Amino acid sequence: MKPTYNSFLFGGDWNPEQWPEETWEHDIEMLEDAHVNEVTINVFSWALLQPAEDRYDFTMLDKIVALLVKHDFNIVMATGTAALPGWMVREHPEVIRTEQNGTRHVFGGRHNFCPTSPYFRNVSRALAAHVAERYTGTPGLVNWHVCNEYGGGGGLCYCEQCAQSFREWLKAKYGTVEALNQAWCANFWSHTITDWADVVPPVSYGDGIGEAKCVVSGLQMDYRRFQSQAQLECYKNERDAIREYDATTPVTTNLMGTFKDLDYFEWAKEMDVVSWDNYPGMDTPPSFTAMCHDLMRGIGGNKPFMLMEQTPNQQNWFPFCKVKRPGEVRKLSWQAVAHGADTVQFFQMKQSIGGCERFHGAIIGHDGTENSRVFKETAALGEELARVGKRIMGSTPKARVAIMFDWQSYWSLEGCVGPTAGFSYPDEVHRFYRALWRRNVPVDFIESTVPLDTLKQYDLIIAPALICVLPGVAENLEAYVTGGGNFVTGYMAGIHDENDLVVPGGYPGKLRRLMGIWVEEIDALAPDETIDVRGEVVDGVDAKGEIVASIIHCEAARALSTYGGDEFYSGHPALTVNDFGQGKAYFVGTPLDRAGMGAFISSLVNTLGLNAIDTPDDVGLSIREADDGTKYAFLINSSNTAKQMRVPELDGGKDLLTDEVIDGLIEMKPFGVAVVELH
Amino acid sequence: MKPTYNSFLFGGDWNPEQWPEETWEHDIEMLEDAHVNEVTINVFSWALLQPAEDRYDFTMLDKIVALLVKHDFNIVMATGTAALPGWMVREHPEVIRTEQNGTRHVFGGRHNFCPTSPYFRNVSRALAAHVAERYTGTPGLVNWHVCNEYGGGGGLCYCEQCAQSFREWLKAKYGTVEALNQAWCANFWSHTITDWADVVPPVSYGDGIGEAKCVVSGLQMDYRRFQSQAQLECYKNERDAIREYDATTPVTTNLMGTFKDLDYFEWAKEMDVVSWDNYPGMDTPPSFTAMCHDLMRGIGGNKPFMLMEQTPNQQNWFPFCKVKRPGEVRKLSWQAVAHGADTVQFFQMKQSIGGCERFHGAIIGHDGTENSRVFKETAALGEELARVGKRIMGSTPKARVAIMFDWQSYWSLEGCVGPTAGFSYPDEVHRFYRALWRRNVPVDFIESTVPLDTLKQYDLIIAPALICVLPGVAENLEAYVTGGGNFVTGYMAGIHDENDLVVPGGYPGKLRRLMGIWVEEIDALAPDETIDVRGEVVDGVDAKGEIVASIIHCEAARALSTYGGDEFYSGHPALTVNDFGQGKAYFVGTPLDRAGMGAFISSLVNTLGLNAIDTPDDVGLSIREADDGTKYAFLINSSNTAKQMRVPELDGGKDLLTDEVIDGLIEMKPFGVAVVELH
Amino acid sequence: MKPTYNSFLFGGDWNPEQWPEETWEHDIEMLEDAHVNEVTINVFSWALLQPAEDRYDFTMLDKIVALLVKHDFNIVMATGTAALPGWMVREHPEVIRTEQNGTRHVFGGRHNFCPTSPYFRNVSRALAAHVAERYTGTPGLVNWHVCNEYGGGGGLCYCEQCAQSFREWLKAKYGTVEALNQAWCANFWSHTITDWADVVPPVSYGDGIGEAKCVVSGLQMDYRRFQSQAQLECYKNERDAIREYDATTPVTTNLMGTFKDLDYFEWAKEMDVVSWDNYPGMDTPPSFTAMCHDLMRGIGGNKPFMLMEQTPNQQNWFPFCKVKRPGEVRKLSWQAVAHGADTVQFFQMKQSIGGCERFHGAIIGHDGTENSRVFKETAALGEELARVGKRIMGSTPKARVAIMFDWQSYWSLEGCVGPTAGFSYPDEVHRFYRALWRRNVPVDFIESTVPLDTLKQYDLIIAPALICVLPGVAENLEAYVTGGGNFVTGYMAGIHDENDLVVPGGYPGKLRRLMGIWVEEIDALAPDETIDVRGEVVDGVDAKGEIVASIIHCEAARALSTYGGDEFYSGHPALTVNDFGQGKAYFVGTPLDRAGMGAFISSLVNTLGLNAIDTPDDVGLSIREADDGTKYAFLINSSNTAKQMRVPELDGGKDLLTDEVIDGLIEMKPFGVAVVELH
Repeated sequence: MKPTYNSFLFGGDWNPEQWPEETWEHDIEMLEDAHVNEVTINVFSWALLQPAEDRYDFTMLDKIVALLVKHDFNIVMATGTAALPGWMVREHPEVIRTEQNGTRHVFGGRHNFCPTSPYFRNVSRALAAHVAERYTGTPGLVNWHVCNEYGGGGGLCYCEQCAQSFREWLKAKYGTVEALNQAWCANFWSHTITDWADVVPPVSYGDGIGEAKCVVSGLQMDYRRFQSQAQLECYKNERDAIREYDATTPVTTNLMGTFKDLDYFEWAKEMDVVSWDNYPGMDTPPSFTAMCHDLMRGIGGNKPFMLMEQTPNQQNWFPFCKVKRPGEVRKLSWQAVAHGADTVQFFQMKQSIGGCERFHGAIIGHDGTENSRVFKETAALGEELARVGKRIMGSTPKARVAIMFDWQSYWSLEGCVGPTAGFSYPDEVHRFYRALWRRNVPVDFIESTVPLDTLKQYDLIIAPALICVLPGVAENLEAYVTGGGNFVTGYMAGIHDENDLVVPGGYPGKLRRLMGIWVEEIDALAPDETIDVRGEVVDGVDAKGEIVASIIHCEAARALSTYGGDEFYSGHPALTVNDFGQGKAYFVGTPLDRAGMGAFISSLVNTLGLNAIDTPDDVGLSIREADDGTKYAFLINSSNTAKQMRVPELDGGKDLLTDEVIDGLIEMKPFGVAVVELH
Repeated sequence: MKPTYNSFLFGGDWNPEQWPEETWEHDIEMLEDAHVNEVTINVFSWALLQPAEDRYDFTMLDKIVALLVKHDFNIVMATGTAALPGWMVREHPEVIRTEQNGTRHVFGGRHNFCPTSPYFRNVSRALAAHVAERYTGTPGLVNWHVCNEYGGGGGLCYCEQCAQSFREWLKAKYGTVEALNQAWCANFWSHTITDWADVVPPVSYGDGIGEAKCVVSGLQMDYRRFQSQAQLECYKNERDAIREYDATTPVTTNLMGTFKDLDYFEWAKEMDVVSWDNYPGMDTPPSFTAMCHDLMRGIGGNKPFMLMEQTPNQQNWFPFCKVKRPGEVRKLSWQAVAHGADTVQFFQMKQSIGGCERFHGAIIGHDGTENSRVFKETAALGEELARVGKRIMGSTPKARVAIMFDWQSYWSLEGCVGPTAGFSYPDEVHRFYRALWRRNVPVDFIESTVPLDTLKQYDLIIAPALICVLPGVAENLEAYVTGGGNFVTGYMAGIHDENDLVVPGGYPGKLRRLMGIWVEEIDALAPDETIDVRGEVVDGVDAKGEIVASIIHCEAARALSTYGGDEFYSGHPALTVNDFGQGKAYFVGTPLDRAGMGAFISSLVNTLGLNAIDTPDDVGLSIREADDGTKYAFLINSSNTAKQMRVPELDGGKDLLTDEVIDGLIEMKPFGVAVVELH
Repeated sequence: MKPTYNSFLFGGDWNPEQWPEETWEHDIEMLEDAHVNEVTINVFSWALLQPAEDRYDFTMLDKIVALLVKHDFNIVMATGTAALPGWMVREHPEVIRTEQNGTRHVFGGRHNFCPTSPYFRNVSRALAAHVAERYTGTPGLVNWHVCNEYGGGGGLCYCEQCAQSFREWLKAKYGTVEALNQAWCANFWSHTITDWADVVPPVSYGDGIGEAKCVVSGLQMDYRRFQSQAQLECYKNERDAIREYDATTPVTTNLMGTFKDLDYFEWAKEMDVVSWDNYPGMDTPPSFTAMCHDLMRGIGGNKPFMLMEQTPNQQNWFPFCKVKRPGEVRKLSWQAVAHGADTVQFFQMKQSIGGCERFHGAIIGHDGTENSRVFKETAALGEELARVGKRIMGSTPKARVAIMFDWQSYWSLEGCVGPTAGFSYPDEVHRFYRALWRRNVPVDFIESTVPLDTLKQYDLIIAPALICVLPGVAENLEAYVTGGGNFVTGYMAGIHDENDLVVPGGYPGKLRRLMGIWVEEIDALAPDETIDVRGEVVDGVDAKGEIVASIIHCEAARALSTYGGDEFYSGHPALTVNDFGQGKAYFVGTPLDRAGMGAFISSLVNTLGLNAIDTPDDVGLSIREADDGTKYAFLINSSNTAKQMRVPELDGGKDLLTDEVIDGLIEMKPFGVAVVELH
């Protein structure tokens, strides 16, 4: 596809407002030395742009933009609404977020607006309009950036305005309180209401049990839907203001991977290009980061995305923050590109001297020179990307496997009070993804509600922990498998309907016919407790289940593996397969450990001929395909040790970074990268 | 004694209001298949029964009752006041509880009323009166059930109404602020007050240190007494409303074993029959569950009680919830009967599809069939109880040993700031109880303030951690031992008087003469630290003390054991005995571990000829005796492994479950049960 | 120097107001038996002294004082303002502290006033004035004691009055909001303000991240400065009231060692004599306690100080509270004297029977007799001090080494968000101190801003984790080293200026020239992770670094040791030395473990000829020197095992406790003490 930008954007956040004007140009020159060709500006400038309710001041921003234009920089222009000015919170206290415990915030923090505040809607739209009016047409302006990391200020809002809006939202959705009572199963614990006014958000001093759980789970689900949409309205509100002045420049906002509070599939529909911020933790496995990239590509319809932020060195907010090892940032950057990024951007260009992020890495560190390891590594990366990046742009990975990532199931699974508190939805998705990643099988991410035609594009569809089966989904999946598709789901799947009510008649509810089984009970395993899984697909492997064990009765299905050990359900099916029409439906009864899931996925990969590619541990291989058929294979060593390998699939290709042709043994340095062009 | 009911009640909570009316009768028929003969209804129906302040609606409840009458069910009818309707909290915000941190709740949760709210008193009494008026005389109505699990909504109430009522309560108790100041030792930290208005409940932003501790411990103790009584007034208020219409049907409310916040001895005095909810945790030892049954029997004067709730399968609120193993629920049910239950009731009949308890087990599960393991096991249990239960009813265990369980000491012990945070009062009671249970020595539970005549019914009285010695108790105990009784107490005993003030003159205060010792100091042991105990009664045993070590000086007493190790108090007495009149008083200076306590209790059992019966680990034997002298011996294997044993005491008896006569070797399956009739 | 008191004060807190008047004299007589010659009174008597806003009542205090005068006791008279009376909080709710989460307290607790409350300032001054007016000139009155443990009520105050006063304070400091914005780097996250009214204290629902960290770190630093000063104003306010009546009797308030919230160097300037409360925890090493004594001596200008409180037996507020072992309190007392205490005082004389401190040890325990171990040990200690104490008074330790303890760096270091959460400032100071203590090298504590002349008094100055370099400090240190001084600092040093802004140009900022290095990056180590350090000064030792590793480039300096292991910075300098003028500047790049720091300090001690004295583990030797040159060497065994040693430096000296002359082998009992007079 046609790339969004004319060059491979390399740059990121620049906050010159924190520095004396006389330093700006020198900084720009240093950035140029590092091959930086883009900066993102104006993210946190509201207080400067609008020092009082009735006054705007673009003096400083004008100077910044002029300097960037002078230096031919690409500009990603933020609307500047990411943190509320002090005067605004003082004069309009209702503009800021209220915690689940009822505490309304005061001036402070960021991403801190109440998403239903009419005042906020007005002022944020007004600021976005002013910025758009002023800077539309600026040379180099390549992207608009609305606000910043929506929801990243910590938690939903629980203020009285949100409560009121929520009641309106419910009224529109349900029509009558009777319908609401039924959808929420409200007769439980005498929660039947007789008036919309009785609805209370899931505050911690009401029905909320933390932010994840709730006495009335439908209340929690609806409140999450409502809040995700309310924030999305804030985004659209600013975007629409921009569109009044600029009809063409793409608009985005930076997302956060598997962030729970926003249903990003809904969000991406409103974005011209998806962008996201990649901040893996110290213990984040490379497969998890890869999964996030694929997810972010997936929500945008498998188009290339922007890597809007990552750090050029250590993050600052972990309990202990290791510096990025030599090559590690380069590796992370290329990993992003490998999975579909068409930009490599950093937070940030120059390290702050104040504020709580001052120990966050930057291209220009506190020393202020080009002498640092970080500066040099960044410059070398910039050189590479300037040399190689452009030809890759617009190409994308092609996958025959799709994983359903379903924010409804995310909220629903983690909202369950029982049978276990051990579930993290992203970790369960990753449990399946990791096994595919390990075998270098490309994966797309899709919504559960995609049309049948989309499903049919894939040989294999996996729906981890799809506890919430929305209307039409089961039917689509049945049609998909009937037509020869292969479907995998498992533990916890199918339990709930769209109202978060249990589907009566036995688990997995609406998927029961397709899976050909009845899950009678779900036993919880203690932390660190495992259960043996043995038989067909896990032969020769020491496979274990964790967290829960589904007690399965095969109806149409047959067992592929059974539980070992000496539980009363030992010998019962642990994995099953159901021949359904022309296809097969697999049910994984227990969260398999790495060995077990590996064996199961291997058998699927082999059966389906999914072209696994063998690489050593921690070395990933991803391929992007251009419209002209050229393939770019990214071989990435995510470990801090050197690796040797032979990858016949790459032989004859040329490593664009070294211009060497691959021929047999490949030697990779710690965090080494090869970008192999294949025709 | 004469049983309360004509048949052995088997059933429990049924919430048809959560289901379409057309499903009700089929559910009832399924329950009949499971030998269910009773349901508890109307627990959480307030919002349905009273949809607005000025309107009642019994339409649905009438239908439910009619159906039950048609099917000859026994009915336990709740008053329906267990959760406040939404409109009520909206219109009368003061009706709901306020947390210790000052947060007043909004609509949500359950068991959530403020216990001093005049509005709540009025409306709950009115609802109870309406229900009683309407359903008194209903065929099958066997019991009234007031509200539900009082106090189970989480914590005491700290609202302004409670503060006001508390001040009145104090005024009535103390008369003058001078008396209050003295009782509370209020000159400490300048807490002297000059006006009743200065009294503040122990809120976390005042003198409260969590809910257990307080700067002024007398304030904490009095607030607990006041709140327990205020909740009891709520119960009595509804009970009295019922009694205006129904003079005879028993009234109860379901209690919660060793629940801290309510002094159940006071409560049971107002209940016609004690009922309670048994929810052992994953790690709860069978001895602890047995102790709770005995305690619940004890507060009711050793009459049979109702097992009002237990789960037919896994609970849902633990971090991980294992399904109950085959036979486990049957075992728990018979264990309850063994200790005096005359009913076996479950929460609940049919599993909810919504609400935070939807993963809690039920007889009819989410599959809605009779095919589930749980349904089948329940039905089998129902068959057994229908066959055997009735003849057992009215019989009771007979004990020669009594343990004092003292809610004042419970609050006082856990209220101490020093010398250790390691004490849980129920665990300390269990420490002694477990050793008796292990030897199958029956135990009654009594209040510390029982009259001397009651004490004299026992050969042995144990008062674990009796830190609070109420007026008259020491004198009674002295008279009891003088007359030949045997008394055991120990660490922490006697330190406080009824005002939670230390009794000057040396520990154990008012018990010092009886025990014949002076405890000079109380050393705390670190978690996992133990101290050796050696000598006479623990000979040949590796006995250890935990948590604290009392440094004891024998006055009239002599040492039975001493501390080992190399502490400066090694060689000092750890256990002492005092010959006092015709009896003996034993002081246990340190919480003995299982081995140590076992040896000590064994020696007492032997000395007193208490007829211990030998059974394997995890197998308990309890005996109920009928008025005609028939004995029912319950042999219960609480483990998931088979056991073999010989119990000569049972030879010749007939196992009522199998109709086999016991003769020598007894083979018990995992979770196996035998009910042996002995003449 | 001339001692402050005529006799060695031995006594402490006495709260007769908690007891019937008829018991007082008997208690005094018992205390006399224990050689107690002083009591501290009136600490918590406000509610008694002022039972209503318009009424004072000194009846009881008059009687107490009269009794003490009769018995020739020394009196330390508190002003009585340490806990607010109930009526006051009820009538003036704003007088009490507000938590960081916005919760204003109600009546309860202690040390609980809002430090900016005008009402509190008035009433506390009035009470202090009344007390001073009434008791000035009382025979035996040796010291005034203002309030109690300022700040010990838990946290800063965040009320609206404090917010208002803070804004005034800022206005006075910065003059304009522009200057404030610059000092706080307020353009970060749009925190730029346009009106002083926009300043909000660092509440948890604003910019506070716990009490230690903050979005705007300058806000946190300034709020801490402001609150420390506001509390100091409260102290001065009462002190000045006293001075209106009594021009000469020393005034103090009891401090708390390394307590974070108050800058004790500022405080000590306003105190005639420093006093402090020593409550080591169960795991506090003796070196840490020694450090606290030296710090408390240091803030007062190395004059003898008062040990105002310690416990005669177990504290009560730990999770588990061990009784003090025989000899342990004596050891702690002599350790205090060894480091400069001229008094030994206890909390408390008689154990309370109520209140949350009733399990805190006392000289007269709950038994109320002289028979207890604690009473006897205290009496023996009293006898020793009466015999030996006076001659020691006025002498002080003489040190050639000084450690900078800097409250600004304390707040700043623990305020960092990144690179690690592993730092406790006092622990980092202790890391260096411990190595000196272990070698019995005396240490003084100084402020970082002392004049050059003060620096020049020392051969070695150590500034652990001096992250905040105040104006003039770097210049003074350069001059000091130029002139031949030896300076040690290291990891985290020099990063911040006085506004908590990073000094641009590379770490260690203003110390870079002096240290001759550039710290390019600071890597964080995971908990329990270490990094090898090897080379010159740690030869033959298994030295490790912890928490962080500075990645150092030598400029003028050279490496003394390097990092081992296989990190990318292995082989880089870990310790460096810079020859700077006539002196040397050492940089310690990583928090060295005990072995590593020991080796480094040993090399310094040897190089500088600092007269280390060899003693066994856990045995400390400290020396006080009198004006006449007499030395008192305190040999203290802080372990519970006997020790043997030879200390040639003590040979020929006389142990004042035993009157034996030291001659070769010294045998010390567990917790043994020798006080050796040397001429």
